[in-house]
Amino acid sequence: MGNPVHDEAGAMESDIASAASSCRHAEYAPSVHKVGFPPKKKLVEEFTETFKETFFPDDPLRTYKDQPKSRKLVLALQSLFPILEWGPEYNLAKFKGDIIAGLTIASLCIPQDIGYAKLANLDPQFGLYSSLVPPLIYAIMGSSRDIAIGPVAVVSLLLGTLLQNEVDPIKDKVNYQRLAFTATFFAGVTQALLGCLRLGFVVQFLSHAAIVGFMAGAAITIALQQLKGFLGIQKFTKKTDIISVMKSVWGSAHHGWNWQTILIGASFLAFLLFTKYIGKKRKNLFWVAAIAPLISVVLATLFVYLTHAEKHGVQIVNHIKKGINPSSADQIYFSGSYLTKGIRIGVVSGIIALTEAIAIGRTFASMKDYELDGNKEMVALGTMNIVGSLTSCYVATGSFSRSAVNYMAGCHTAVSNIIMSAVVFLTLKLITPLFKYTPNAILASIIISAVIGLIDFEAALLIWKIDKLDFLACMGAFFGVVFISVEIGLLIAVTISFAKILLQVTRPRTVLLGNLPRTKIYRNIEQYPEATKIPGVLIVRVDSAIYFSNSNYIKERILRWLRDEEEKLEAKLLPRINFLIIEMSPVTDIDTSGIHALQELYKSLQKRDLELVLANPGPVVMEKLRASDFMELMGHNKIFLTVDEAVMTCSPKAREDV
Amino acid sequence: MGNPVHDEAGAMESDIASAASSCRHAEYAPSVHKVGFPPKKKLVEEFTETFKETFFPDDPLRTYKDQPKSRKLVLALQSLFPILEWGPEYNLAKFKGDIIAGLTIASLCIPQDIGYAKLANLDPQFGLYSSLVPPLIYAIMGSSRDIAIGPVAVVSLLLGTLLQNEVDPIKDKVNYQRLAFTATFFAGVTQALLGCLRLGFVVQFLSHAAIVGFMAGAAITIALQQLKGFLGIQKFTKKTDIISVMKSVWGSAHHGWNWQTILIGASFLAFLLFTKYIGKKRKNLFWVAAIAPLISVVLATLFVYLTHAEKHGVQIVNHIKKGINPSSADQIYFSGSYLTKGIRIGVVSGIIALTEAIAIGRTFASMKDYELDGNKEMVALGTMNIVGSLTSCYVATGSFSRSAVNYMAGCHTAVSNIIMSAVVFLTLKLITPLFKYTPNAILASIIISAVIGLIDFEAALLIWKIDKLDFLACMGAFFGVVFISVEIGLLIAVTISFAKILLQVTRPRTVLLGNLPRTKIYRNIEQYPEATKIPGVLIVRVDSAIYFSNSNYIKERILRWLRDEEEKLEAKLLPRINFLIIEMSPVTDIDTSGIHALQELYKSLQKRDLELVLANPGPVVMEKLRASDFMELMGHNKIFLTVDEAVMTCSPKAREDV
Repeated sequence: MGNPVHDEAGAMESDIASAASSCRHAEYAPSVHKVGFPPKKKLVEEFTETFKETFFPDDPLRTYKDQPKSRKLVLALQSLFPILEWGPEYNLAKFKGDIIAGLTIASLCIPQDIGYAKLANLDPQFGLYSSLVPPLIYAIMGSSRDIAIGPVAVVSLLLGTLLQNEVDPIKDKVNYQRLAFTATFFAGVTQALLGCLRLGFVVQFLSHAAIVGFMAGAAITIALQQLKGFLGIQKFTKKTDIISVMKSVWGSAHHGWNWQTILIGASFLAFLLFTKYIGKKRKNLFWVAAIAPLISVVLATLFVYLTHAEKHGVQIVNHIKKGINPSSADQIYFSGSYLTKGIRIGVVSGIIALTEAIAIGRTFASMKDYELDGNKEMVALGTMNIVGSLTSCYVATGSFSRSAVNYMAGCHTAVSNIIMSAVVFLTLKLITPLFKYTPNAILASIIISAVIGLIDFEAALLIWKIDKLDFLACMGAFFGVVFISVEIGLLIAVTISFAKILLQVTRPRTVLLGNLPRTKIYRNIEQYPEATKIPGVLIVRVDSAIYFSNSNYIKERILRWLRDEEEKLEAKLLPRINFLIIEMSPVTDIDTSGIHALQELYKSLQKRDLELVLANPGPVVMEKLRASDFMELMGHNKIFLTVDEAVMTCSPKAREDV
Repeated sequence: MGNPVHDEAGAMESDIASAASSCRHAEYAPSVHKVGFPPKKKLVEEFTETFKETFFPDDPLRTYKDQPKSRKLVLALQSLFPILEWGPEYNLAKFKGDIIAGLTIASLCIPQDIGYAKLANLDPQFGLYSSLVPPLIYAIMGSSRDIAIGPVAVVSLLLGTLLQNEVDPIKDKVNYQRLAFTATFFAGVTQALLGCLRLGFVVQFLSHAAIVGFMAGAAITIALQQLKGFLGIQKFTKKTDIISVMKSVWGSAHHGWNWQTILIGASFLAFLLFTKYIGKKRKNLFWVAAIAPLISVVLATLFVYLTHAEKHGVQIVNHIKKGINPSSADQIYFSGSYLTKGIRIGVVSGIIALTEAIAIGRTFASMKDYELDGNKEMVALGTMNIVGSLTSCYVATGSFSRSAVNYMAGCHTAVSNIIMSAVVFLTLKLITPLFKYTPNAILASIIISAVIGLIDFEAALLIWKIDKLDFLACMGAFFGVVFISVEIGLLIAVTISFAKILLQVTRPRTVLLGNLPRTKIYRNIEQYPEATKIPGVLIVRVDSAIYFSNSNYIKERILRWLRDEEEKLEAKLLPRINFLIIEMSPVTDIDTSGIHALQELYKSLQKRDLELVLANPGPVVMEKLRASDFMELMGHNKIFLTVDEAVMTCSPKAREDV
């Protein structure tokens, strides 16, 4: 392989050959900088640094430095209960903003709560319970000023689907409710644990593209579920995929859909969508879209009451249990087969709920330019759900639509959640009988108009433009949810996310570098067509740390670059390669497998009569190469600060002088 | 935060300020190179490239190019059955080498097979069966010339432990054997599937450090299990952890260990270890260590026969069933509860067996400088185990010790495995009655001397020198196996490996760069103390692709660098920072989450009156920044080819002229 061509390019050959021998024997040339060793760190120091960077990247104890003990105690309490921090600074101006925002989101949340509880196959009052206690806990412990807490569509659907796989919600209502509370308890435990152990970064492992697809699929699924109430169908499939739903819908078509129901539902849906459109077009009319659901409920209830539409087949809510949250601490399973089921469902829904809440919190914190500690938020959300599970609530989290309304209505602090909670309190105490004649169709319309906002076409389009493989992931999650089931869609989303991470790790990029003429700069020849390869030298840049997960691939890939290059040179009868320079600046770290791969590469090259040269290794890599004796094997004079210095030392005449 | 200090350093301040405005408005300065866009690739092209690089990185179809159809068929058959390739070139010289190697490894494998079958709680003949059929299949389909196939210690231990958790090997022998064959079948299926789907890189996800720890722990565990035969103990614990074993050993101490057994075992163990030592010291005496086990068996059997030691409490093998492998196809579970157990155990043991075989194959291929296709090997190993499971064999793979002996004895091809298989055939047909008086103690001694080689102190020491955290992983796996159980130790090894990968992904390195005086080079200020920071400019290099898994961390880390730097400058009353330059060359890729993080960073900086500047983004990143309109947001004149050009354009007088 690669016999030197003696006849052609003879002068250049001998130059390269003599430079090769001088490279083997020379000490540092005067223009070559010495590659520095970093100061040796103690084991404890190294470990502490890595630990801090992994779990405490935002340096949360920064404010505790140099403070007296009493102050530290105050800071610690304020950290756990942020209300102690912003409470004393509360004033009337903030209260004005909060009370308007609170009333607005309350009007939005009451009809949604009743509808979402249905999604979770629970009685309507449980939705209202979950808008009463959790927001209060959050207001004490949470840090986001704009998030609106309560039941949300996607988590309610997820919970409903997972629970009804285990227990029938109609035939075994008691156990179903007990399992719901158990799942909520363990969702809260999961969230609080992740926050306490500062494992918040786990939530980031769901790829954005997969989430977009999953949310859109969930929205479609939820809208399809509403067809039951919307069309007044009695017999409806338990499954959630589009095929089963459509079968149910067309199957009952010849029974006749209830036209009165459709009339009510369709007209109010049109009204709601119209108000939503107005709210988007003119930002100052957002409140119209916000109070539209409550007005629709009132009007629809009046209409049914006056026309006695329920006698014409229009299904109504009929009964919401009066009174505030009863205790449910005795209903949670702490043993038995339902315990493991509850834990499993709790962990899954807890993490999904976290993803929503953290995304919302970060978005508004970034818009209003304040900082949000993700792990602290998780502890607050977890505590909220634990307490909620003891007071007949199910999994609550931040709602996109309500938080946006909260923000636009001018909220200042979490007091808006307290106001909303107070309104729900009054509703449960006094107003629930008035919902008797509320038609299911209006709730269906409200939910449909709410989830349509979850389908983010713009995000999907952006993903398509940026990364087609990402778009595949998005579509995979979407179709998984719509055509198979919510759990399978979620599983597809998670698997795709992990596969992406693994792919990134296991197939790192390697590129060939060429010299930009008349400069000392070397760039990727694929991106810069003017970059020219240096004769007799092959320069490869490895764009990743070299770990066990990719060391073998990197070694084989470099050898393949070499082989392809030599084949091309042979075909054109050009002189062969004598030096393989590896540009190491992106190689942030290396482990024993990586060093082993470098050793094998070195031996492989020796057999082919090539020299291995390293350029610009980082401090960590330098340290490890020295510790492993690889540097002795290779020779310290083969390591250079820049690619240019390496090229100039190994092949001085090969590059045009600058 | 960061108010400009007007009084001090006034001249420098105004220079920087005016440069800042010129940076905002200037077009390309003549010395600045334009950052190139890569040629746009079609979706299909992009997808095919990524697919090929992920699954076919070694370009296996290279040899098929430009060949006539008949040749392609021959190449394809040779690829599936490599024996068709090297068979025709076989000659007498190679046969001489192979027959010596074959006889040597046969003498080594026969006593080991009987011992390892015991580890797996199977009757001795199953070990011999597994050295008869699998090596034959491998010789036809495998590509490694040096590997020696048969049962191995670690896999036998793993299989035995996992199987006896499900079925009692003594009380329910029939089902235990059936489950063993089922597990072997699915181990083979797993291996072949991974190979066919070219998912071989999955095997690389076990970190080298964790494997070293796991193997050492397994070796200790196996040695401890041998104490039963070595000391002649009747009642022995089923558990494998060191505490239970020691309890059994001391518990039976007052019953009295059988001194005759100990005498036999200890003396031959000393003999075996001595021959091993000789073999290491003088490479040409390796054959002494190789035939020592068989000689020990012969001598010990003679001794017991002549002295009737079995009447004095020395336990003997007593009976090995005569005859070659019976068919076991009807014994494999294809339905029922045992099926899922068999699949689970099969997958685990299959992957561990793969790890060993691939490591061995690669080591010798690298030493003899031939190529090995990992995925093809997996198909061969998988087929071998599938066929083995139908012929009463259990999981076989490559053995470290026997392969080393094979290599040193001068094997040329896999014919050595065929020779070994022939010898085992003869043994099963004729010689098995002679093993009647073989004491268990000698088998125990052979196994102890064999597994001691699995404890790689040098590798552990190297890991300690190179990466202390890696060493922690190694120790975690080791202690998990020794003190808890093999499965838990394996779980710890896998978890640590994955955690390392996730850590690498989720906490990428970011470093501050400074200018090396009198050059245009910028390096990590931690590694190069002479690198000086540029006034008014903060240069951060991000050492990883920016994906959803780390985008938020990177954004927050950069903002923290900025904040820390500004605090230091304020304390020293130095001018504030005006430009944040991100050196993007290690950023190989970016997705929507990454672009979103850049947008948030940009807005954050705008609020603080800072400019965001990018240096040397790669082609993929450039393409995506353009597709996402981020470049319009930022301004195309803020993207430079090198850090130096960025610094010179934004802050011309800040760096000493070169």
